[in-house]
Amino acid sequence: MCKGPKQVLILGGGFAGVYTARYLAKLLRPDEASITLINRENYWVYQPMLPEVISGSIGLTNVVSPIRRLCPRSNLIMREVENIDLKGQIVTVSPGFRPRQLQLKYDHLVIALGNITNFHGMPGLIENAMPFRTLADAMVLRNHVIHALEEADVEEDPELRRRLLTFVVGGGGFSGVEVMAELNDFVRSVKRNYLRLRDEPHRCVIVQAGDRILPEMSEPLAMFAQRILRERGIDIILNDRLKAATSERAILQSGAEIPCKTLISTVPSALPQAVQKLDCSKERGKLLVNAHLELKDYEGKVWALGDCACITTAAGTKVPPTAQHAIREAITAAINIAAAVRGGNQAEFNFEGLGTLGSLGHGAAVAQIGSVTVSGLLAWLLWRGVYLMKMPGLNRKIRIAADWLRHLLFPPELAQTKVAFDSGIHNQHFEPGDIIFEQGDLGDSVYVIEEGECEVLCKRKGQRELLATLSGGECFGEMALLSHRTRNATIRARTAMNVLIIPKGDFDKLRQSVPIFGDVFTELAQRRAEAGSPHSSVDPGMPTGGSRGNSNEAVLFRR
Amino acid sequence: MCKGPKQVLILGGGFAGVYTARYLAKLLRPDEASITLINRENYWVYQPMLPEVISGSIGLTNVVSPIRRLCPRSNLIMREVENIDLKGQIVTVSPGFRPRQLQLKYDHLVIALGNITNFHGMPGLIENAMPFRTLADAMVLRNHVIHALEEADVEEDPELRRRLLTFVVGGGGFSGVEVMAELNDFVRSVKRNYLRLRDEPHRCVIVQAGDRILPEMSEPLAMFAQRILRERGIDIILNDRLKAATSERAILQSGAEIPCKTLISTVPSALPQAVQKLDCSKERGKLLVNAHLELKDYEGKVWALGDCACITTAAGTKVPPTAQHAIREAITAAINIAAAVRGGNQAEFNFEGLGTLGSLGHGAAVAQIGSVTVSGLLAWLLWRGVYLMKMPGLNRKIRIAADWLRHLLFPPELAQTKVAFDSGIHNQHFEPGDIIFEQGDLGDSVYVIEEGECEVLCKRKGQRELLATLSGGECFGEMALLSHRTRNATIRARTAMNVLIIPKGDFDKLRQSVPIFGDVFTELAQRRAEAGSPHSSVDPGMPTGGSRGNSNEAVLFRR
Repeated sequence: MCKGPKQVLILGGGFAGVYTARYLAKLLRPDEASITLINRENYWVYQPMLPEVISGSIGLTNVVSPIRRLCPRSNLIMREVENIDLKGQIVTVSPGFRPRQLQLKYDHLVIALGNITNFHGMPGLIENAMPFRTLADAMVLRNHVIHALEEADVEEDPELRRRLLTFVVGGGGFSGVEVMAELNDFVRSVKRNYLRLRDEPHRCVIVQAGDRILPEMSEPLAMFAQRILRERGIDIILNDRLKAATSERAILQSGAEIPCKTLISTVPSALPQAVQKLDCSKERGKLLVNAHLELKDYEGKVWALGDCACITTAAGTKVPPTAQHAIREAITAAINIAAAVRGGNQAEFNFEGLGTLGSLGHGAAVAQIGSVTVSGLLAWLLWRGVYLMKMPGLNRKIRIAADWLRHLLFPPELAQTKVAFDSGIHNQHFEPGDIIFEQGDLGDSVYVIEEGECEVLCKRKGQRELLATLSGGECFGEMALLSHRTRNATIRARTAMNVLIIPKGDFDKLRQSVPIFGDVFTELAQRRAEAGSPHSSVDPGMPTGGSRGNSNEAVLFRR
Repeated sequence: MCKGPKQVLILGGGFAGVYTARYLAKLLRPDEASITLINRENYWVYQPMLPEVISGSIGLTNVVSPIRRLCPRSNLIMREVENIDLKGQIVTVSPGFRPRQLQLKYDHLVIALGNITNFHGMPGLIENAMPFRTLADAMVLRNHVIHALEEADVEEDPELRRRLLTFVVGGGGFSGVEVMAELNDFVRSVKRNYLRLRDEPHRCVIVQAGDRILPEMSEPLAMFAQRILRERGIDIILNDRLKAATSERAILQSGAEIPCKTLISTVPSALPQAVQKLDCSKERGKLLVNAHLELKDYEGKVWALGDCACITTAAGTKVPPTAQHAIREAITAAINIAAAVRGGNQAEFNFEGLGTLGSLGHGAAVAQIGSVTVSGLLAWLLWRGVYLMKMPGLNRKIRIAADWLRHLLFPPELAQTKVAFDSGIHNQHFEPGDIIFEQGDLGDSVYVIEEGECEVLCKRKGQRELLATLSGGECFGEMALLSHRTRNATIRARTAMNVLIIPKGDFDKLRQSVPIFGDVFTELAQRRAEAGSPHSSVDPGMPTGGSRGNSNEAVLFRR
């Protein structure tokens, strides 16, 4: 009946997607099914070991595995899924080197796109909180921490040094706890290489919304974990959560503030755009599937699994988003796809979990297998043993074991593997009272206010004078860039503010190529200098109108 | 007489700088000298092994060594040197997290800033040619090559696939040869993991200005190397050099063009800005020093060594820029600084080199020690042995040996460790005839012409019609972005062009925050749409004036 192999399309290269592709390759011959997997990376991340990248106890690329080697029978397309047309059976993916989308027709579809971190409605988090999901996230965090240590070593201001040595994670589940445990181990062990930091304390903080960490585990184990982490110097703040952030501090729901330069957040998560756009049965946004993991109304065509699916076992429990479950879901889906392609029995998903394991940093972990609980060094050895065995491929197993051995014998890796410093045009959030820049600073960026108000302050004869108030639509900081001088006023946020920051490099490029863009700022700077002739050396916000941006230059930036 | 330790400042963390710091720490006690080293990275790169990062035969961070561990007595400042004031004895370094420069006073200064790659006067090279000096360069290149392979695997157009599989390096010295040999090995071995590339040929090209590669070696050895490389499938183009480049091809002096998506250049080099600005005795830009490696007029105060110094031995030979020489220069400088600090005999630099070694990829190398030449596998084992021994620290030696062993047993690493895709506002160069974008493409950027002319072409009833010619100061591509449609015209370069590319993300941010910026483009798009009502669906460059940018919208972008 059918001519040529069926097109099976798998979206997502996490545990669920990759294992579906692997099992399918065993169940179906190449002439029965052509398997294509779409993932934005060409590697699969071994999530349980990702935190170890921070301390370098596992080499950067050993914690991931190339999908092409894991799934040699699958075509891999390294692009982003942009749209799923369930009715037309077409998936659209993002463009590559050429600005053209790619459309892929399928006979059978597996949606395993996982979830994403979403800071919507939390001011400043998108700009300042680092997620921790991908290898890139882990590398960025590692490089950021090293950068903070390098700067702390040079910094004379004790207050800023303290901030550089404070590390905060939002979320006290497995992910948050493991990240902070590793980070703490790393900072503690490399600090001795920094001549001026050796005797300086550092601070690691976990902020958890519930009344204990590790909600995935039983209370006694969580209590044990809390005690171990606290003994190792980690602060645990309970019954509170991240509310907002600036580049200088984390702000909690309770109103408490933690001055810090490093903020990680493992919560909250949302579904990927392509899943959000899908018009089908859902439960709290997740794709609702039956016992065969099929999407309602698309039985035999579409399966959903992993973190983006809402799965209920026969016993009625909601399946948690863990690797062990994802792998079993993949087996079920693969069997059912094979059945759809060439007939045969369908399988039902029915797996209640083997137990939970969480690392607390070097030499300590907690484990719960059925009603048996293990903690401490034994649990840690169990953790390492289990996850090493689960890592597919002898090559990786040997590499990781070698890395662990090396980590026991030698101090951790300290080289910063950053690729680029420059962040380009970006947004930033400030809270009331924050200093945006200080008189005497170098002019490195122009700022455009999107929301909120700030004050222009100038120190004269030892006194701080308020020169003007700027608000939404106005800009500041252009003068130092145009005149190549240092800032001659201080800018302080009066309310919460969102600004667009245009770094000097981008500002100069735009000014050169789009003269009108530069003219706007040049005129503004001139008018400000003239209007402010008594204090003509002051950089931004000359008080033409005195306050509140009724001045001409403000109009320029308003619709 | 002197109170407190003398301040010794070392600029640059290459072989010369790091080894000076290491020897100085042995010669002077902490109460005699406080040593500070300034480098933009916190690690020292073991240059000879850097090409092996491409194939992953050495792990990413094993080819570098943290300076803090190499020089535990030195303060490291991870910043860029911006200015050297020889008279005032002050060095200014770039700002860190805070926008403030740091000024450092010194008693004794070592300038070992090396050299940089400089593509001045070579159109399009700065935008498209990748340098190969730092760990970041190596990572960028590796990720770029993997990206090209991933895209080639998906690409249907055979011409573009060929371009994605062509890799060109400008410069046939050690550096260029070793990079291309490694890259060729890597591509050859991972291609089998790409289902559609297995039988597809790839092309590696070395472009060398002289009439043979490896000018550092004797002719017979270079001839041997050329034969080996050619046997391994590498094209060697002699007596030619890179002249220009676009994102699609390399253009040579002879007029020959090589369509390619990967272009590396190891030539030409220039001196860092801070050295260029120095007002002192120089020879061809390099700092002229005496036999004690002291800078003229600053004897006992300032030493210059490494690639930024012009050093002549007693025998009258100019010292080549190699690691073995830099290490001996560092010893000489350290002895002389110690002599300046507490008296004693000065040393003269007198080292004529031990020989040269160059790798030709897996299992082959060339070596020349005095009048003895070795080539092939024996030279390769010698290469590995010598450089492994030279790597400081047992930790690194073990790691590298383990990496090599792993590389013999397992296939190379394939995971792409990219951190970010987005390049922000950037420049690009096009040559006559180049298509900038094609009708039907997605609108991903706005273009502003800085120099040159392009044609707006539209396909109608199967025919390509010339709608307008745009030139310097004009922009195009805004319409698809504003209307969220695909490009409805093709843009082709008429002359060589330099453009500023504003990606959609940046364009949208600017438009939102600086309304006048968006207004300019919106008005332009409207006027173009109205003026071009007969072909109102055409995107850019509506022929208001017909040609040559006398149109109103052009004026908007001109001073």
